[in-house]
Amino acid sequence: MMRTAVLLSCLAVASPLAAQGPVTAHYRAVADRIIGAALADSAAYARLGVLVDTFGNRLSGSDNLEHAIDWIIAEMGKDGLANVRGEPAMVPVWVRGAESAELVAPRPMPLPMLGLGGSVATPPDGITAEVLVVSSFADLEAHGDEARGKIVLFDVPFTNYGETVQYRVNGAVAAARHGAVASLIRSVTPNSQRTPHTGVMLYVDSVTKIPHAALTVEDAMMLHRMQDRGERIVVRLRMSARTLPDRESRNVMGELVGSERPDEVVVMGGHIDSWDVGQGAMDDGGGVVAAWEAVRLIKALGLTPKRTIRAVGWVNEENGLRGGNAYRDAHATELDKHILAIESDEGVFRPFGFSFTGTDSAYNVIRNVAALLAGFDADSVGRGGGGADIGPIMEGGVPGMSPLVDGTKYFWYHHTPADNVDKLDPVDVAKVTAAMAIMAYVIADLPEPLPHGTGATNRDGS
Amino acid sequence: MMRTAVLLSCLAVASPLAAQGPVTAHYRAVADRIIGAALADSAAYARLGVLVDTFGNRLSGSDNLEHAIDWIIAEMGKDGLANVRGEPAMVPVWVRGAESAELVAPRPMPLPMLGLGGSVATPPDGITAEVLVVSSFADLEAHGDEARGKIVLFDVPFTNYGETVQYRVNGAVAAARHGAVASLIRSVTPNSQRTPHTGVMLYVDSVTKIPHAALTVEDAMMLHRMQDRGERIVVRLRMSARTLPDRESRNVMGELVGSERPDEVVVMGGHIDSWDVGQGAMDDGGGVVAAWEAVRLIKALGLTPKRTIRAVGWVNEENGLRGGNAYRDAHATELDKHILAIESDEGVFRPFGFSFTGTDSAYNVIRNVAALLAGFDADSVGRGGGGADIGPIMEGGVPGMSPLVDGTKYFWYHHTPADNVDKLDPVDVAKVTAAMAIMAYVIADLPEPLPHGTGATNRDGS
Repeated sequence: MMRTAVLLSCLAVASPLAAQGPVTAHYRAVADRIIGAALADSAAYARLGVLVDTFGNRLSGSDNLEHAIDWIIAEMGKDGLANVRGEPAMVPVWVRGAESAELVAPRPMPLPMLGLGGSVATPPDGITAEVLVVSSFADLEAHGDEARGKIVLFDVPFTNYGETVQYRVNGAVAAARHGAVASLIRSVTPNSQRTPHTGVMLYVDSVTKIPHAALTVEDAMMLHRMQDRGERIVVRLRMSARTLPDRESRNVMGELVGSERPDEVVVMGGHIDSWDVGQGAMDDGGGVVAAWEAVRLIKALGLTPKRTIRAVGWVNEENGLRGGNAYRDAHATELDKHILAIESDEGVFRPFGFSFTGTDSAYNVIRNVAALLAGFDADSVGRGGGGADIGPIMEGGVPGMSPLVDGTKYFWYHHTPADNVDKLDPVDVAKVTAAMAIMAYVIADLPEPLPHGTGATNRDGS
Repeated sequence: MMRTAVLLSCLAVASPLAAQGPVTAHYRAVADRIIGAALADSAAYARLGVLVDTFGNRLSGSDNLEHAIDWIIAEMGKDGLANVRGEPAMVPVWVRGAESAELVAPRPMPLPMLGLGGSVATPPDGITAEVLVVSSFADLEAHGDEARGKIVLFDVPFTNYGETVQYRVNGAVAAARHGAVASLIRSVTPNSQRTPHTGVMLYVDSVTKIPHAALTVEDAMMLHRMQDRGERIVVRLRMSARTLPDRESRNVMGELVGSERPDEVVVMGGHIDSWDVGQGAMDDGGGVVAAWEAVRLIKALGLTPKRTIRAVGWVNEENGLRGGNAYRDAHATELDKHILAIESDEGVFRPFGFSFTGTDSAYNVIRNVAALLAGFDADSVGRGGGGADIGPIMEGGVPGMSPLVDGTKYFWYHHTPADNVDKLDPVDVAKVTAAMAIMAYVIADLPEPLPHGTGATNRDGS
């Protein structure tokens, strides 16, 4: 995911309802059946394991991604979902290629690294230059005169993702403005085992494009110590990254068609693309599988809500958001009929409930439904939920939400070779699946549609 | 380090003394001066940074190690320590060479790995074979018929080091007994970010020597899931490790000579060798530097104890213990004059106190001295301390002890490319330095020597 993680502090916004409303009472038995079925086995975790072990990581433009989408379409068909399909979306194609970094002075050693998504290459022989270590954009400004002809390394300790990721996204532009020939960052994470973290970076047209890569926390700190001791630091950086023409990919989806109002839709999912390292299990295979398994579970229990529930794996969340935009465009005339959008993209860790963006009246309905999850302490509802992929349709007025999970370790593994399925727990995955299934089913089945709109200026005037 | 970490449960053995004895009262002012000086700056941490950043890791037989020892000798001389020297010890020379592992089927992908110390090489083209995943030695026995001609992977979850490390040490022999052509382990750690862990392994003469290497936790679990799904797994392992003739290295040491009984010695230190990955900062550059800085601090404060304090960096703890044995041999006639041996080899993390192996009467003295550390909550004394390098002289009756530290994350970084100085905290390093300095100074200065012996059958009859 790209956006700032929902803060746990929003838990304070919501507490379990003291008195459960009529919604809760009516759906209690159904909810308990869903919970029982989800927690009866490790089906969702096992399916995620097959996905990520079989296809590996799935960067936009890769064959891995297309093969994974083909497989999901086949499997959704076997599950008996309706309207299983891939909706086309053109995606960017960035190919990492061979890459390396090595310390040349004060002593030679390889530096584990990952080029950042979208970076240009170095010349074939690499760039060998002195390193200027800075600890912030302000520090760079203060030492701007020293940056010319050098490789600038931003050694910035992790505070929170939204703040620290600025150096990954915008570091190359800042360094190039001062004449740097390449830029490096300390990986964006609070915890490291010498593992580099990749992620998207951006250029602006008016500034020279220089190569941009992430070192490990350990090595960034080491180079900083060397500079503090007055040692001359030289690094050789080699990157052969290329940006190829866009390629057609797909948002992959399947449905349980509503019995009474099939054109009204609760849409939920995650993003099927990932970075090109690790397995993309936490970010975000788990979100896709939880939504998909939620729909499969509802169907397997013989439940048919009044409205349609659609499980989606959006494409290209990581480096373009083309999937989320394509979904909005493809369904532009149907957004009034999109009752609710749910995205899981913060890891299917232990759930506490949901975060919700919608009107006050809708919020009250959501809290009522969430009370059905009190049995496994997932009944909190905070404000401010959503997700990058559902952002475009939320801008069109669709209420959005996301599971609220224990994200303590999310950024330990985010965009790394270590984002493997073992970072998730089968019971947590089952709980998130159950939470999404119950939320989607009840909202899709209520007599009245959830009030539309995403906030104070919404059409219901709340 | 090789030995099982001291369990925190031994904290229960000791609680702060309710009434402080005369020892404590007499040395209170000196102890507070030492604490103040140690905590006044980050000198110990900074020195450790210079050591590990400048020389990197220091496997026995490597030039890095010899250069680091040369530097320590020069620096100890500048510090004004006495009798600064390297005492010779022949060490084994195992050279890793190029190595790799790759998954061939069910899908091709590189597998991060580290050959285990002492392993033989594969043939130049590597070994390509089917993989049999087992979860224990018993599981291997149960499926012994399936191991012939295969690569056996021990996918054993971490319980405690002493238990789980058996697969690293003895896995190759167990697999070879069943006709395996190579063996792999899941890295010995409770926490992974796709980082492999190396360490020593052993052969026995009667069993074919097969290559033995560690995969990451993530990949071992993935291969296990693949096997559980009935998929055929093929791995190609390439290792070019060589064992060369022994090379002369040194135990490095310097002293503060006692004013009244210079032939009586308190010896303390850690091991200066490390594995050939990361920086060997936690394991065990920190132990060497804490002991060294403790002696430097005592001297800098103008304190001269009655007996000699000797700071030592033992060599070859990791794969041979030649340094600890050579020290015992070189000082065989002086062991009665070794009053106490202290080894720090569990990471210079936040200290709680010490663990001690000695007679009951000596234990009471140690508890009295440790009470001087109550100011930073490091006054607990448990039973059972020591260290691999001081093991040989403890067998000769020298009481042994080790700082008791918060080892929560020790095995996260142990024997990995991530064992860098950033894993330690400057204040913690200063506290361990202060604790070792106070313990060594007071024991070296007491009117009566600490009772000799290491337990119930000791010469003082306790």
